[in-house]
Amino acid sequence: MSEHVYKMLELVGSSTKSTDDAVRNAIERAGKTVRNLDWFEVLETRGHIDKGKIAHWQVKVKIGFRLEG
Amino acid sequence: MSEHVYKMLELVGSSTKSTDDAVRNAIERAGKTVRNLDWFEVLETRGHIDKGKIAHWQVKVKIGFRLEG
Amino acid sequence: MSEHVYKMLELVGSSTKSTDDAVRNAIERAGKTVRNLDWFEVLETRGHIDKGKIAHWQVKVKIGFRLEG
Amino acid sequence: MSEHVYKMLELVGSSTKSTDDAVRNAIERAGKTVRNLDWFEVLETRGHIDKGKIAHWQVKVKIGFRLEG
Amino acid sequence: MSEHVYKMLELVGSSTKSTDDAVRNAIERAGKTVRNLDWFEVLETRGHIDKGKIAHWQVKVKIGFRLEG
Amino acid sequence: MSEHVYKMLELVGSSTKSTDDAVRNAIERAGKTVRNLDWFEVLETRGHIDKGKIAHWQVKVKIGFRLEG
Amino acid sequence: MSEHVYKMLELVGSSTKSTDDAVRNAIERAGKTVRNLDWFEVLETRGHIDKGKIAHWQVKVKIGFRLEG
Amino acid sequence: MSEHVYKMLELVGSSTKSTDDAVRNAIERAGKTVRNLDWFEVLETRGHIDKGKIAHWQVKVKIGFRLEG
Amino acid sequence: MSEHVYKMLELVGSSTKSTDDAVRNAIERAGKTVRNLDWFEVLETRGHIDKGKIAHWQVKVKIGFRLEG
Amino acid sequence: MSEHVYKMLELVGSSTKSTDDAVRNAIERAGKTVRNLDWFEVLETRGHIDKGKIAHWQVKVKIGFRLEG
Amino acid sequence: MSEHVYKMLELVGSSTKSTDDAVRNAIERAGKTVRNLDWFEVLETRGHIDKGKIAHWQVKVKIGFRLEG
Amino acid sequence: MSEHVYKMLELVGSSTKSTDDAVRNAIERAGKTVRNLDWFEVLETRGHIDKGKIAHWQVKVKIGFRLEG
Repeated sequence: MSEHVYKMLELVGSSTKSTDDAVRNAIERAGKTVRNLDWFEVLETRGHIDKGKIAHWQVKVKIGFRLEG
Repeated sequence: MSEHVYKMLELVGSSTKSTDDAVRNAIERAGKTVRNLDWFEVLETRGHIDKGKIAHWQVKVKIGFRLEG
Repeated sequence: MSEHVYKMLELVGSSTKSTDDAVRNAIERAGKTVRNLDWFEVLETRGHIDKGKIAHWQVKVKIGFRLEG
Repeated sequence: MSEHVYKMLELVGSSTKSTDDAVRNAIERAGKTVRNLDWFEVLETRGHIDKGKIAHWQVKVKIGFRLEG
Repeated sequence: MSEHVYKMLELVGSSTKSTDDAVRNAIERAGKTVRNLDWFEVLETRGHIDKGKIAHWQVKVKIGFRLEG
Repeated sequence: MSEHVYKMLELVGSSTKSTDDAVRNAIERAGKTVRNLDWFEVLETRGHIDKGKIAHWQVKVKIGFRLEG
Repeated sequence: MSEHVYKMLELVGSSTKSTDDAVRNAIERAGKTVRNLDWFEVLETRGHIDKGKIAHWQVKVKIGFRLEG
Repeated sequence: MSEHVYKMLELVGSSTKSTDDAVRNAIERAGKTVRNLDWFEVLETRGHIDKGKIAHWQVKVKIGFRLEG
Repeated sequence: MSEHVYKMLELVGSSTKSTDDAVRNAIERAGKTVRNLDWFEVLETRGHIDKGKIAHWQVKVKIGFRLEG
Repeated sequence: MSEHVYKMLELVGSSTKSTDDAVRNAIERAGKTVRNLDWFEVLETRGHIDKGKIAHWQVKVKIGFRLEG
Repeated sequence: MSEHVYKMLELVGSSTKSTDDAVRNAIERAGKTVRNLDWFEVLETRGHIDKGKIAHWQVKVKIGFRLEG
Repeated sequence: MSEHVYKMLELVGSSTKSTDDAVRNAIERAGKTVRNLDWFEVLETRGHIDKGKIAHWQVKVKIGFRLEG
């Protein structure tokens, strides 16, 4: 019963605003197809530069969710 | 023919008994939905403490299985 | 719109010919079931030896693809 | 005189707002019991998800402070 | 209120029996002087060999506990 | 033609406001002397503490730009 | 006299029973040909899966022994 | 005289053909502006995928060259 | 009895003379408040430059000491 | 019987032709003095540059072979 | 004003005398062409052996200096 | 001819005097049984503390030597 098994998804979220927002976008997208999202871990932060400015923040995250049954 | 491709799953198994048992639980769960499980790699060992005792061992594993066709 | 989310797959490609070919095999296989493959990252290169010769090159890759909608 | 020795504390700060705020909370807490805080290093960023949203950002930091005498 | 701060202790537990037991010994010892132990992370497993046999398993763990107030 | 070569610069940006702002400062500074900035990778986040508060966020970034001809 | 030099061997032990047993098998085997075994360090834990069950635990260890004279 | 100092450049070479070719392209480009190139170290192999095929191999290398005087 | 538990301290020693001296300073300082110091591990070597010369060597060390009872 | 122990050799192969060829050279050389070579793992790829061209590829590999009896 | 940006140089210093001296040589050389050197980080220590003795210590360092305006 | 293969030995040298001396001791010992020593890489620096003072410096090194024929 309490011996749950979790699966890790690895996503890259992007945002024009901030690193935190890129993480939020990744998690929100995961929540569209997966239930029981439980925690995330940030792996890597990068971004794309256009005309000398940050165009997109790109954050790679692992997201853990509980498998049912 | 012999140039197989394998897919890696990443799971976290938990157990109240031992680290080895947490790995076994993750692999058993993977076997319910995936065939041709071939090998695993232990990534990380953690656990939850409750009232000064280990309540759960939590082991993150990557599991490789052969893709068909 | 431009705030895409990408998912990472982790595969191990094998080849009797070369490391580059093992990567190609992994990506080709991914392309059979996933659209919008965008980039890959090589994680690990190993191989199997038989009678003193390299029998298979095995390359672990992460492959990123854009999630739709 | 100028050959100071520093001690590293390792804390995990959490915040419902942002990663930066989680770091600030950890440092503020350290400042309640330790003087001469000098610098910090971010080790790991994770978080807890509840109902498909980030409930807490959790940031592990090392904090260096100068030992007296 | 829910924005807790946690402190990490780093201990090395040893055991003549098993790796899991070395972790348990470290956590039990931590519990003698610290309250609110919450989780642990295994960092490193080593051991001492005597007359060709494992004399002690030595496991380095980080232990997180919630700071009060 | 499409076989571009890129050069990586390594800078540390600092900011009194936020980690994201420290990254922005590093990239803006790079843009003063280098053209064709293309992407960045965050390597390390640290900061300086003064009187128990974060005085500066310091973020080490690698910045890639396309070499001409 | 007290300035000993040690040599590191790297072995992979396997066991059908447990990770700890795989380590023991590696050390026992080393003891057949080398004297003065002194300590070991666990590098990597993997295993082979057969029909959905763990067939072998495989643990890579470095073993240090004192060189004579 | 024999106590040389070397400087490391970090470049990303790309190639439509192979990983080795991407390294060669990076080194050739470095040789256009720098003398006394001495050795290189491969840091990271990635690539871009277009229509399910590898469009470019991208290899990040550090290149060491001897500083004069 | 022989199943000791050890605690790790993390200190940064500094020295105007040498890296080894920076380590010695850290250990000496630790010995003022802690008994049973047993071993150390060097984590990181850095330093401060003033007017083109090394002003301080700074070495981060983990120091292990045996906990009593 | 099936609880084999493997030993890891660490070699650096070099080649004027390619990275794959450098690996092959290392394995071929190992096969001259060791039987039962089973697998290899690539650790590091470097090379020597002469007159602006790659003179040698140098690849560090670990090679595992089964110990008898 | 206080939001400085720093650039990291990566050099390898060599010395026939000691590791510390190899670092000093690298920093001294950097000071010939760059102003405002501020700190260094040791990345890697290697060396060349000739006739069974250390001929050169080689230390790879990153050196940070403040960019003006 | 110029496609040499090198073998890596891993030793831990110890010294009561300094880290550099511990490296020297390891290399001198290797030279007693192996010819063609070519280079070394420092992996890890640790030490033993006795009565609050450093009793031994212990440095783990990899040593590369050219294989003949």
